[in-house]
Amino acid sequence: MSNVLIVHAHPEPKSLTSALKDLAVETLTTQGHAAQVSDLYAANWTAVANRGDFLEQAQADRLRYAAESRYAFATGTQTPDVEAEQQKLLWADAVLLSFPMWWFGMPAILKGWVDRVFAYGFAYGVGAHGGERWGDRYGEGKLGGRRAMLSVTIGGRAPHYSERGVNGRLDDLLWPIQHGMLFYPGMEIMPPFVVYQSDRLTEAEWPAVAEAYRHRIMGLFSDRPIAYRTQNGGHYDGQQVLKPGLGAGESGTRIHLVQPGDPKEVLERTGRDAARKMEACSGS
Amino acid sequence: MSNVLIVHAHPEPKSLTSALKDLAVETLTTQGHAAQVSDLYAANWTAVANRGDFLEQAQADRLRYAAESRYAFATGTQTPDVEAEQQKLLWADAVLLSFPMWWFGMPAILKGWVDRVFAYGFAYGVGAHGGERWGDRYGEGKLGGRRAMLSVTIGGRAPHYSERGVNGRLDDLLWPIQHGMLFYPGMEIMPPFVVYQSDRLTEAEWPAVAEAYRHRIMGLFSDRPIAYRTQNGGHYDGQQVLKPGLGAGESGTRIHLVQPGDPKEVLERTGRDAARKMEACSGS
Repeated sequence: MSNVLIVHAHPEPKSLTSALKDLAVETLTTQGHAAQVSDLYAANWTAVANRGDFLEQAQADRLRYAAESRYAFATGTQTPDVEAEQQKLLWADAVLLSFPMWWFGMPAILKGWVDRVFAYGFAYGVGAHGGERWGDRYGEGKLGGRRAMLSVTIGGRAPHYSERGVNGRLDDLLWPIQHGMLFYPGMEIMPPFVVYQSDRLTEAEWPAVAEAYRHRIMGLFSDRPIAYRTQNGGHYDGQQVLKPGLGAGESGTRIHLVQPGDPKEVLERTGRDAARKMEACSGS
Repeated sequence: MSNVLIVHAHPEPKSLTSALKDLAVETLTTQGHAAQVSDLYAANWTAVANRGDFLEQAQADRLRYAAESRYAFATGTQTPDVEAEQQKLLWADAVLLSFPMWWFGMPAILKGWVDRVFAYGFAYGVGAHGGERWGDRYGEGKLGGRRAMLSVTIGGRAPHYSERGVNGRLDDLLWPIQHGMLFYPGMEIMPPFVVYQSDRLTEAEWPAVAEAYRHRIMGLFSDRPIAYRTQNGGHYDGQQVLKPGLGAGESGTRIHLVQPGDPKEVLERTGRDAARKMEACSGS
């Protein structure tokens, strides 16, 4: 059985977003998994990254956030709230981010969870850097071998987020989160679970939504993740630019998805990564 | 002469981001413009949207943020900090957002500025909704006729953000901000000013960066904005999906840019919008 961390960011316990969070916990525990919830609003999570995040300061006269983050992570001088979240992430086999889409992204409290918890040496600045090597990121890293999924409630209508919808397609809007925040430190990304027109959901419609979400939760470890290309798997050149010939016929964010005819990935996964081989990159 | 609001989000006054903010103020005032700065860290801006944002609550037993936002905006019961920022936005002819890119987006404190200041009735929920009409947004709205520009410092290297770079191209990463947060309430979006490898900038390199930024600031009202398609200008159908034949040869976020051969926009702009006709959509 597995461990699942749910990071939840909604101010109202009676909201649809919170009901989905509760349903996830119930579904997971019924299946025998262990679930932990970081309820950011309930915990009064500190959203703003600042010098207070570092119990000591390596350089007192000027705050260089990344440098201080590196020092604090290496010396065990992070704040307890940040360290606790990192421990939960290391404990987890999968992470769900549960939030309402506000202005086409996460609520600030959740962005501030990423800003503060994803420390240098933990979520970035991991692995060897130098020459043509840009560290362990995008498919590798300290969070490698884990799965991540977004559970998002959206006020707007589905067509507005479709392939040619006026808001831009959902995949593009979620790209900075799914690829930039979650795939970057090594997690495999499951397709998002989304409820549109969430403010208008009726009691009568809830059972179908709940059933759909339950189904996705139950497939968390068996469904196929999004086939993002790994950074060090042979797709990108020394400048970290996609090699010629790859991504043919696609543009935008889609060129970063593995295509059926692509050469086999040459990434040598280590440790935990090796145990759970990334289906996304084994062909398809 | 014009009014410019700079919304600035960096914890360190000695940072490059802050130096760019100071340079913008100096350049604007030298030109005779009026500049106002909302320095979010200095102001200890409240980042987390919550029930405290509403001096009265229309529905006491359950927080529906959008509904409360609508009520508070309509009845003058928003908090003074939110109202002050809205007044600055209405005062401004142009808005600069000045921030370091953290995890491919804004620092949480700036996202929280958007979450709280962009109220229902102010930045969304503006204009008639119903039938095939989805309000005044994407090129129209209360902030119509204003210009917006991002000034972003980025730790990574330019190739990683290029057309086929591993992070995804910069335009796609900024799409939720530029199109979703700024074009949505009506502003015209100038191409972003970006400094890559900002942590490694040397004293010797600063003058060239400063000169490039000064040049962009001086072109704030004369340079050409990004040619995003307006929602109500004839590009989208009643489902808010791009009409067949438009965006040919493009995909992803680029299909939402006006192309040279497109039919002439039929948008009837009113008020302040009419005075400063949107160059982006007059062809080219």
